[in-house]
Amino acid sequence: MTNSADTVHAHLSPTSLRLSDQPTVTVIGDGQLARMMHTEAIELGVHVRILASDAHNSAAQVVGDVVIGDYTDLADVRAVVAGSDAVTFDHEHVPTEHLHALRAAGVNVQPGPEALVNAQDKLVMRTKLAQLGAPVPEFAAIESLDDARSFFAAMNGAVCIKARRGGYDGHGVWFPDTREELDELITKLLDAGTLLMAERKVALVRELSAMVARTPSGATQAWPVVESVQTNGICTLAIAPAPGLGAVETQVRELAATIATSLGVTGALAVELFETRNAHGEPEIFVNELAMRPHNTGHWTQDGCITSQFEQHLRAVLDFPLGSTEMTAPVTVMANVLGAENDPEMSMAERMRQVWLRHPEAKIHLYGKSHRAGRKIGHVNVSGDDVNQVRSTALACAHFLVHARWP
Amino acid sequence: MTNSADTVHAHLSPTSLRLSDQPTVTVIGDGQLARMMHTEAIELGVHVRILASDAHNSAAQVVGDVVIGDYTDLADVRAVVAGSDAVTFDHEHVPTEHLHALRAAGVNVQPGPEALVNAQDKLVMRTKLAQLGAPVPEFAAIESLDDARSFFAAMNGAVCIKARRGGYDGHGVWFPDTREELDELITKLLDAGTLLMAERKVALVRELSAMVARTPSGATQAWPVVESVQTNGICTLAIAPAPGLGAVETQVRELAATIATSLGVTGALAVELFETRNAHGEPEIFVNELAMRPHNTGHWTQDGCITSQFEQHLRAVLDFPLGSTEMTAPVTVMANVLGAENDPEMSMAERMRQVWLRHPEAKIHLYGKSHRAGRKIGHVNVSGDDVNQVRSTALACAHFLVHARWP
Repeated sequence: MTNSADTVHAHLSPTSLRLSDQPTVTVIGDGQLARMMHTEAIELGVHVRILASDAHNSAAQVVGDVVIGDYTDLADVRAVVAGSDAVTFDHEHVPTEHLHALRAAGVNVQPGPEALVNAQDKLVMRTKLAQLGAPVPEFAAIESLDDARSFFAAMNGAVCIKARRGGYDGHGVWFPDTREELDELITKLLDAGTLLMAERKVALVRELSAMVARTPSGATQAWPVVESVQTNGICTLAIAPAPGLGAVETQVRELAATIATSLGVTGALAVELFETRNAHGEPEIFVNELAMRPHNTGHWTQDGCITSQFEQHLRAVLDFPLGSTEMTAPVTVMANVLGAENDPEMSMAERMRQVWLRHPEAKIHLYGKSHRAGRKIGHVNVSGDDVNQVRSTALACAHFLVHARWP
Repeated sequence: MTNSADTVHAHLSPTSLRLSDQPTVTVIGDGQLARMMHTEAIELGVHVRILASDAHNSAAQVVGDVVIGDYTDLADVRAVVAGSDAVTFDHEHVPTEHLHALRAAGVNVQPGPEALVNAQDKLVMRTKLAQLGAPVPEFAAIESLDDARSFFAAMNGAVCIKARRGGYDGHGVWFPDTREELDELITKLLDAGTLLMAERKVALVRELSAMVARTPSGATQAWPVVESVQTNGICTLAIAPAPGLGAVETQVRELAATIATSLGVTGALAVELFETRNAHGEPEIFVNELAMRPHNTGHWTQDGCITSQFEQHLRAVLDFPLGSTEMTAPVTVMANVLGAENDPEMSMAERMRQVWLRHPEAKIHLYGKSHRAGRKIGHVNVSGDDVNQVRSTALACAHFLVHARWP
């Protein structure tokens, strides 16, 4: 047998794959968010290029135009963005100064550094939101042990310490219960050079997420607000629409649009919120975090909305008109597939088979990631009429994909 | 500026991109059907490899694992399928004998050659369907001018001449009106070595398409039957569900499932049908064509069904359980974007912008193809409640994408 077949990418430069009349979006990052952007980009006829740290990472497995490099290295970033119509991100970790350098060189970075710094630095974000009059928990910069002690005292010990930069999925967040724990924690973190802030620990009833997309031209389009269930700091469930939200829905959607506009966000923005109760027992909300990209709490839009967050993000960063965010079912629930301590012997393909046999309506999304405890390796979307039934199906399917048994 | 970034595919063999626990499907073909299979494969965590004739073709632009080769060359086909869990197609043109050779070598070809020959050779298909008792127009093999003349006489001149192999989109179909035209046509075609058949020209009221998927294990799942509008032999519109179908719907869905099962089809099967009227003025149907792959008349499922034809095809060829084919809207209409004689100066991106400004609910799908008269370069799906409104919106959007003006 002669083999005249040959891999194509060996003799093509990335840009030669691009059609002249096709916009190119470069995504800095190689995780599942970049991967799912590519899914939508294919259908839109948008060319996606990614900057990946490793050819085996989630997005790098499925994108045709992959450049290997380091997003903290300005030369690498400059090289990958050349010729792009827009540059965007699947994480917040590109150094702000690199983004300024790209902007200065005329690169169309969306969102831009002035907006993105609010998703990169929690103290900058809290300060900005407070200036805007958005509801945020009381907070303080922590630059010394004294700062921490006085804030701890003022809050009667109900505090949360956060790393200003680099946290995700519960990393970079601490809840010291006593003055002794506080002292030990702060000393250790300051010694390690971690930039810190503190905020009041909110007695939350539940968490919500309000997602909105905004274009450079200033158009905004919000999705229905969802309830987000977190376990150990990691999102495990998103319920759309958030049950029983009532008048708070409008308030929260408007807040998200206001934040997007005031901060000059472009692309998808997730506003994560705490719902609590005021002294009269009425619902009250506080902004917790901002993410300026597609977000875990928006994965349900892939199967529950006319326009998914991934399509909308691409449209937004290219300054296209935004799509309809109308739901295609009364309820959609997303359950994350999170790696457990042990990966069962049953293959993932066999687990999918079992899930689909029982639930032909389950939409399984996998990220091409190997199993590791706590790692997000996929999610399941289920739509229907009854929120309890849909929620329980989504949870059961996600559970089976991890544990190879029904809950 | 130093450039330490590097294209990844230059130093990776295709299989090194594959995760061990991920099924691999090799698709023979590089058109929009392979492209849209990849869209769904990304979400399912299924690894797609394609055999492409050119690195710039539709699917080759967006797939990470592309092998360049010739599907008529058995060595090329053998090379690309190595290590695949399943092998499937985005066209019917792989020589049947190559498929037998692959099967003999233990390759999991879906659909297999015994089934696929019915989509490759129209005479084989007609004969087989007649044996099954499926409604087909009267037909005859044409191996000589005498064969043609006698069939023409028997049908009172209402005949259609078809090339047995290789036709698509109106190519390979002729309608001679007179004996003289018939003689000239048949002589020319037989001289050129074209294998021919003839069938009665049906006085059709409209065309329908019944799509079904079937797994190697024998499970079938049908989508709602659609009305398919053809212009010059090319599908321009699919309306789901076909309006006013009544009792014919069940009959047609059962017929499609029977054909899939009797022919041993695996993956997606499109049964294209003529709807006509019998002597009593009642609806009557005839099978026109079969396609054993995702089909143009099934593109609406991407935005109108829980499980699209592309996801279902992948699930079917991997023998996964089939997904729900429930609709997510009362009506979905697909309109093809077909290249016109002139490609307007307005860029495609600007046309998309104009379409979305007016219709934020329009789902635009582009194939990464350059403009050429009559070429399928994309499609638009629109969903809603009112079939006339949805149809007119879909048509208007597709028209704008081609002509840069509203109809």
